Amino acid sequence: MDFAPDATAHEYSERARAFLDEFVLPAEPVLDAQLAATPDEWGVRPIVRDLQREARARGLWNLFLPGERGAGLNNLQYAPVAEVTGWSPRLAPAAFNCAAPDTGNMEVLNEFGTPAQQEQWLEPLLEARIRSAFCMTEPDVASSDATNIGTRIRRDGDHYVITGRKWWSTGAMNPDAAIFIVMGKTDPDAARHRQQSMILVPRDTPGVRIVRPLTVFGYDDRDHGGHAEVAFDDVRVPAANLIAGEGEGFAIAQARLGPGRIHHCMRALGMGERALALMIARAAERHAFGGALAEQGVVREWIAEARIQLESLRLLVLKTAWLMDTVGNRHAMTEIQAIKIAVPRAVQQIIDRAIQLHGGAGVSSDTPLAELYAGIRSLRIADGPDEVHLASLGRAQLRS
Amino acid sequence: MDFAPDATAHEYSERARAFLDEFVLPAEPVLDAQLAATPDEWGVRPIVRDLQREARARGLWNLFLPGERGAGLNNLQYAPVAEVTGWSPRLAPAAFNCAAPDTGNMEVLNEFGTPAQQEQWLEPLLEARIRSAFCMTEPDVASSDATNIGTRIRRDGDHYVITGRKWWSTGAMNPDAAIFIVMGKTDPDAARHRQQSMILVPRDTPGVRIVRPLTVFGYDDRDHGGHAEVAFDDVRVPAANLIAGEGEGFAIAQARLGPGRIHHCMRALGMGERALALMIARAAERHAFGGALAEQGVVREWIAEARIQLESLRLLVLKTAWLMDTVGNRHAMTEIQAIKIAVPRAVQQIIDRAIQLHGGAGVSSDTPLAELYAGIRSLRIADGPDEVHLASLGRAQLRS
Amino acid sequence: MDFAPDATAHEYSERARAFLDEFVLPAEPVLDAQLAATPDEWGVRPIVRDLQREARARGLWNLFLPGERGAGLNNLQYAPVAEVTGWSPRLAPAAFNCAAPDTGNMEVLNEFGTPAQQEQWLEPLLEARIRSAFCMTEPDVASSDATNIGTRIRRDGDHYVITGRKWWSTGAMNPDAAIFIVMGKTDPDAARHRQQSMILVPRDTPGVRIVRPLTVFGYDDRDHGGHAEVAFDDVRVPAANLIAGEGEGFAIAQARLGPGRIHHCMRALGMGERALALMIARAAERHAFGGALAEQGVVREWIAEARIQLESLRLLVLKTAWLMDTVGNRHAMTEIQAIKIAVPRAVQQIIDRAIQLHGGAGVSSDTPLAELYAGIRSLRIADGPDEVHLASLGRAQLRS
Amino acid sequence: MDFAPDATAHEYSERARAFLDEFVLPAEPVLDAQLAATPDEWGVRPIVRDLQREARARGLWNLFLPGERGAGLNNLQYAPVAEVTGWSPRLAPAAFNCAAPDTGNMEVLNEFGTPAQQEQWLEPLLEARIRSAFCMTEPDVASSDATNIGTRIRRDGDHYVITGRKWWSTGAMNPDAAIFIVMGKTDPDAARHRQQSMILVPRDTPGVRIVRPLTVFGYDDRDHGGHAEVAFDDVRVPAANLIAGEGEGFAIAQARLGPGRIHHCMRALGMGERALALMIARAAERHAFGGALAEQGVVREWIAEARIQLESLRLLVLKTAWLMDTVGNRHAMTEIQAIKIAVPRAVQQIIDRAIQLHGGAGVSSDTPLAELYAGIRSLRIADGPDEVHLASLGRAQLRS
Repeated sequence: MDFAPDATAHEYSERARAFLDEFVLPAEPVLDAQLAATPDEWGVRPIVRDLQREARARGLWNLFLPGERGAGLNNLQYAPVAEVTGWSPRLAPAAFNCAAPDTGNMEVLNEFGTPAQQEQWLEPLLEARIRSAFCMTEPDVASSDATNIGTRIRRDGDHYVITGRKWWSTGAMNPDAAIFIVMGKTDPDAARHRQQSMILVPRDTPGVRIVRPLTVFGYDDRDHGGHAEVAFDDVRVPAANLIAGEGEGFAIAQARLGPGRIHHCMRALGMGERALALMIARAAERHAFGGALAEQGVVREWIAEARIQLESLRLLVLKTAWLMDTVGNRHAMTEIQAIKIAVPRAVQQIIDRAIQLHGGAGVSSDTPLAELYAGIRSLRIADGPDEVHLASLGRAQLRS
Repeated sequence: MDFAPDATAHEYSERARAFLDEFVLPAEPVLDAQLAATPDEWGVRPIVRDLQREARARGLWNLFLPGERGAGLNNLQYAPVAEVTGWSPRLAPAAFNCAAPDTGNMEVLNEFGTPAQQEQWLEPLLEARIRSAFCMTEPDVASSDATNIGTRIRRDGDHYVITGRKWWSTGAMNPDAAIFIVMGKTDPDAARHRQQSMILVPRDTPGVRIVRPLTVFGYDDRDHGGHAEVAFDDVRVPAANLIAGEGEGFAIAQARLGPGRIHHCMRALGMGERALALMIARAAERHAFGGALAEQGVVREWIAEARIQLESLRLLVLKTAWLMDTVGNRHAMTEIQAIKIAVPRAVQQIIDRAIQLHGGAGVSSDTPLAELYAGIRSLRIADGPDEVHLASLGRAQLRS
Repeated sequence: MDFAPDATAHEYSERARAFLDEFVLPAEPVLDAQLAATPDEWGVRPIVRDLQREARARGLWNLFLPGERGAGLNNLQYAPVAEVTGWSPRLAPAAFNCAAPDTGNMEVLNEFGTPAQQEQWLEPLLEARIRSAFCMTEPDVASSDATNIGTRIRRDGDHYVITGRKWWSTGAMNPDAAIFIVMGKTDPDAARHRQQSMILVPRDTPGVRIVRPLTVFGYDDRDHGGHAEVAFDDVRVPAANLIAGEGEGFAIAQARLGPGRIHHCMRALGMGERALALMIARAAERHAFGGALAEQGVVREWIAEARIQLESLRLLVLKTAWLMDTVGNRHAMTEIQAIKIAVPRAVQQIIDRAIQLHGGAGVSSDTPLAELYAGIRSLRIADGPDEVHLASLGRAQLRS
Repeated sequence: MDFAPDATAHEYSERARAFLDEFVLPAEPVLDAQLAATPDEWGVRPIVRDLQREARARGLWNLFLPGERGAGLNNLQYAPVAEVTGWSPRLAPAAFNCAAPDTGNMEVLNEFGTPAQQEQWLEPLLEARIRSAFCMTEPDVASSDATNIGTRIRRDGDHYVITGRKWWSTGAMNPDAAIFIVMGKTDPDAARHRQQSMILVPRDTPGVRIVRPLTVFGYDDRDHGGHAEVAFDDVRVPAANLIAGEGEGFAIAQARLGPGRIHHCMRALGMGERALALMIARAAERHAFGGALAEQGVVREWIAEARIQLESLRLLVLKTAWLMDTVGNRHAMTEIQAIKIAVPRAVQQIIDRAIQLHGGAGVSSDTPLAELYAGIRSLRIADGPDEVHLASLGRAQLRS
């Protein structure tokens, strides 16, 4: 249970931190300007390409991916790097080619894809030549319950035909998102967790229709390719596009979830640290009623509580990473669930207090806080609301 | 201490409720369509004009305004009507010509304006021919502390010259917002609360410059005329534009605040009721893990807690209204402060839980919840953050 | 919906307040001394008798009881008086002969008792010549679910025979508690709410056995007659001791609950006010780190929050009382449930913060705070835990 | 940053756990019976002596003490053992001779005592032949502010003369508590943190007067020797009784605090684990409204939240222990403060929820929960209230 970053992790996170300070944070206003200049586009902006080039040259590339195709970092080593990227969630993950949902999609292809699937889709994703989307959640059913899925994937000779409607397909508004991984039911009569399959659907397949973009608290997350509602109307793809095999969809989703959740938590810690840093700076510089905010008891309490929360939850994230590395994702399920619940909730409170301390600047775009809030708030819903995870974790304790 | 709506209040609120159900709620998607059709405009949309015409015909007009020019309702009578408008804050207040900041500005002109000022600005506002803005908050100082104000209003012969920078001037992006009430210091050397004055600045006066719109979370509140940063660079207006007299600014602001705060709270109750109604509907219709959400203990607790909060805080709002009507705003200061703190906070929690229950639909624009959240969250900052009011209320208790 | 105390209520509560200040609060250390002098006794201490004599002489007697036998106050009129007694829960309710469980028991006898039952038991209770106990809760089952009750009441000729085990029989350790009202099942096969009956069991009936006293946190509540576990082993009483009729037990319990709950809430407000008064006094007088506690932001927030909570919840209690008086207890069920949940919880937080502000004096017997805490904490369990009421209230909202 | 228990720690904690299960938990009712049999005595009960004998024979003795006189465990190794003792705070710490305040007093004598002081007082303490008390807190001043101390220690020839009044001298009611370590001011004019000294005062010195016992939520903690108010009226002791030197009192107190605080937190985790275990058992076995409590969503949430809290805070405690072992107590101040705030607060909530789930059994002595609550609640006051530590920690962050 040694959580300290080893030499490799230390070295990578130092370099990531330097890159953040030198390139990423200064690029934030550039991104804003580029977004303002082309308000109707959904593609990757030039500044992201610039950052990617620089990051790749520095070896800060695909660090999330275990194995030969990535940098060879395990979860515990990747954690401090991912936390750094959380300081600038609009730019840093993309700059390092470590942004969701591409990360999860690359993991799926890396672990479950055939060589042909890997060559066609994984390679260009690893080089950031294309982007991807993951089409899982559906508007009509509670998607935390996988047996609810309504999308159908029917075998028809050498093809599969997909029919259904998805939403919250993050990144799918971006025309560069060339490939969609779609979850649906191949056999609704099979055992509960063997009904689902995953299949690769190229964006330009007939019948794929981008219905509309969705917003998160008013943000369209255009810089990430947004979040799309996507209709699949009798979409026909070759049978070879199926990933792993019929009935494997639930298992693949589970395999994808563990890393996805912990990566979100690692980044969330960075978001919390940035909010705390902004809170501290504001408290020191802002005056009201004859004194600095830093001298007010309530402000000090907020800062102290934030520090305590971040310290204890970081340890829980690191322990989870260590467990995933040593005993495997499956035996770290309780811990993964615990951080999925606890980290976003705590970081949300930290960001909310930072907003309060900044007043009007906090809710506007003059600080990154309101957008960070929207992001962290939706994390408490994405991939199962807190309450589902609490119930599951409570049940596990009752059984133990 | 009789809080029950009397016959007048009952009759008005029944009519307002019927109007809401019949006209306003169905108009919400129309507004969305009109906004989408002209995404770059800041003016009032046609649907609002339609609703205004209909509401005025039904006598649901200027109900907020005491005295002869309004409908003659006191605060206690206005409360249930204002609550109804909170169900649709983007449309209902404007439809009834009861939307901030026009309401507060009309109150100021009604109470402190000269006949000439009233004729020129109050009359068209009462008929919704123009809109207005209130320029108080400044980006560089904590505006909850009035002695902080940096804007200067200097006498120069028959004119005043205004120099300063304001932000969060709600409605000012709307080109129909023809008149701005600006707060500034006429005498920085006077006693603490006699330094400030208020002055009328027509929008088209040379030196008035709309710097940029601000966003609240990701919303630009375009349908309300947005929130502007406004620069005043040596803006010269006739001396007759001063309201009430030099040094009266703080007193006018105080007089404007009481009604403003309670109106916000009344509407907030309606926002909370709408979120609760959505929560109940969702709980009844949505199924997961083999049962309706309504059967889950946590959901029931949220609904019960929301009902308890709304009931108890409505009583506190009504008591406050009753005190304002009977002993005057000045003697209701503790209660006004109490509701300013307690109501938005409770309603925020109700809306947040409604969001959580709605999952992805909650954070998107498919429900009004995320936008309601942004609105109520910023209320906890506007006109002094919660913490300033808590400190003040605590101090008052310690003195009592 | 006029909640203001009328002339009667005003006059009674003024007199109660004067009596509290002049007699009851000064008697608290006397009670402590008398308790310390006879540590093994469970009976009423002399100081209580003294206060009863004085209160009765002043007409502050049996004020809780509606109708001819009481003072003729309705719930709304009684509320401010009951709140006054909450300032000193160990002494004031008993001094006014308004202490639970005697109040509820007197109500039951007053409303459902035969003339003979009233003569034998109600009259001496009204004169405080005897005390009583209410034996409802059982150690082996969740007593919030009335169908769980295990005690049996079997007809045997002209008698009933009672067998079962009860606990939390408040007051039953006091040898003067001459009469027990016992709830049990006469017909376990009847409809769910027609199985239960209530019966009068004199303390000295063979087979009645006081098993042991219970403690609440470390308090034995000796001054209230404690809380007993009581065994009923084939206890035989005349059939005439049955109250109202077989199968009426549940309905009587329901009738008893409404007033019982609101009286608890009224007193709880007084407990909260006393804690707040102690908090304010402490904040003003105590110094640390160079300043009075009153100057610390956190302390001011606690005081402000307490004031807001007490104001809004008092209004909810008054509205509930008004509803009970005007439309009847049955139509005030939602409000009764709401205050049962909300008031003790809020008052608990106020007392807890007052404890925190008093440091070591807060947890010890040097202030009344720790004992107030124990009392209010157990209210959140007595007569159904908060969670049962929240679920029930939530369900009612979902149906409405 | 390797927190895993090493072989030594693992072996000790396994043995401690076995001893707890086999001897300590079964001894709890024995202690209750012995306390009931001699209700007026304050000394150690026979069962504690029995457990001490057995524990010592098993080498589970003085494990808290670093260095040669103890078992040679460092903080990280001691942590899991101390957590085990938290399961039964009335018996286990005393059984292992690891109970406060003796532990802290032994540490002081071990680190700062002269050979003569060690021979006279440390040796019998290490063998549990005597007990001790630490007289620091005073009734008249906020003791979190050391400059407030009112007790005076005046040099008079070969003696010191002590005058003052202390309270919350834990253990001092026990007549076996033969030695008191008293903090007072030797030089009120010295620098702020050089005014205080510590001195050894044998219990039987003339002028030492046990004024009264104090209670914590009704508990007199008789099994720990209670908590005393102690008066020192011109108490004369030899100059050789001074510990370390004049002006060293503050530094000694600081040195004593670090281990004291972390030991409290380690034990508190055990208290939380016991409450959680009781909650789980109750949820599984208790039925209401047709189902086990375990099937209710709210119960599952409580259990899940408790598990998450205990996991994350245990890691923070272990990191703190590791820091104390590796970089020293002084460089672990932030972490020590963080756990001092966060652990008791979280454990308090867990115990409170366990109480709620147990209903009447929870507040009574039928479960250990109410007494655990009283203990953990007072920890949030002892040695500086949470708010003082939050302010200090917040200030440190603002400086960093």
